Amino acid sequence: MPKQVDRYERRRRIAEAIFEVIGSRGFQAVSLRDVAAQAGVSMGSVQHYFGSKDEMLLFALGYMRERVLTRLQAELEKLGNPSRREVVRAAMRLMLPIDEPSRQEARVNGAFYSLATVTPAYADILRDGYARLLTTSRMQLREAAAAGEIADGIDTDSEAAALFFATQGLIGPMLIGLFSAEDALAVLDHQLDRIFR
Amino acid sequence: MPKQVDRYERRRRIAEAIFEVIGSRGFQAVSLRDVAAQAGVSMGSVQHYFGSKDEMLLFALGYMRERVLTRLQAELEKLGNPSRREVVRAAMRLMLPIDEPSRQEARVNGAFYSLATVTPAYADILRDGYARLLTTSRMQLREAAAAGEIADGIDTDSEAAALFFATQGLIGPMLIGLFSAEDALAVLDHQLDRIFR
Repeated sequence: MPKQVDRYERRRRIAEAIFEVIGSRGFQAVSLRDVAAQAGVSMGSVQHYFGSKDEMLLFALGYMRERVLTRLQAELEKLGNPSRREVVRAAMRLMLPIDEPSRQEARVNGAFYSLATVTPAYADILRDGYARLLTTSRMQLREAAAAGEIADGIDTDSEAAALFFATQGLIGPMLIGLFSAEDALAVLDHQLDRIFR
Repeated sequence: MPKQVDRYERRRRIAEAIFEVIGSRGFQAVSLRDVAAQAGVSMGSVQHYFGSKDEMLLFALGYMRERVLTRLQAELEKLGNPSRREVVRAAMRLMLPIDEPSRQEARVNGAFYSLATVTPAYADILRDGYARLLTTSRMQLREAAAAGEIADGIDTDSEAAALFFATQGLIGPMLIGLFSAEDALAVLDHQLDRIFR
């Protein structure tokens, strides 16, 4: 394996271990020791691949975005030749905590949010990620409108934002068991029914 | 001062100190020592009023809900004789982090969410709070519909949920500076324009 790839692979594996620890035991449990044990490597190895705990967590946050995009790609491939509405729905569905990977991502994201309110570097990465997702949502609805797939009188930019934030807002209540996946998807599908022709 | 009131007042003051500590330095900083220093009381005094750190945090979470309701009451009194639409908007606006009290509440709520994913007692209180808010939102739209104030073809229960979750979903992005108060309110007002006649 080329050295660069191997280094990335090791860092990725440590990031996955961080997600496991945060997802199952909460952010308070993230110590060098716990992460090393979860990744099945030595503490020295973790220190070799990451100069500091901050560097490790920032890498993990960036890698999480990659992981979500990879999952979305796989979902879209499963759909075959999806309509624009199906792409929008798949992206929203992917953000909801409805299976183990998405529940873990939601918990980890929540933990990074708490960090971000006191540490600007985390806020920068989160903000950049959300801005891209919001822009993508708006582009999708604009393209659907250009293709004549959107109902009359719909402000696509405002509706894309409302859809995106409603999806984000469902994550926490779903994690604590207030809303089931079915309830959440029903609320979002009702909006899609209204927005799309 | 009657003893019962005094005890509550002391506990309330300690809860406010917890909000200050979480809001400015993050959840990791919440130690008995920091809370006592912030409240201007001794560590022994904190221990006297709360049997454990968990009891202290659970009280703080319950008290936060009270504090939000008190702020909402004050907002509604300021509005004088608000329409149903104004009541709905005031309640949504109050949840958004647009001033120092609401920013602090949003940060503290986020911290409790992270706790809730690993500690069921916090999840129970959060879930109960969200369930009440969602029920209230639905009741308000149903009453508005009965009064003929809602546009034709609106499913008030589904729209109340979408509005409520969009508001919740705007909180995090606003905290990290992705969306301004004006941007957030524009998204919500666009939905209110559509839902109300």
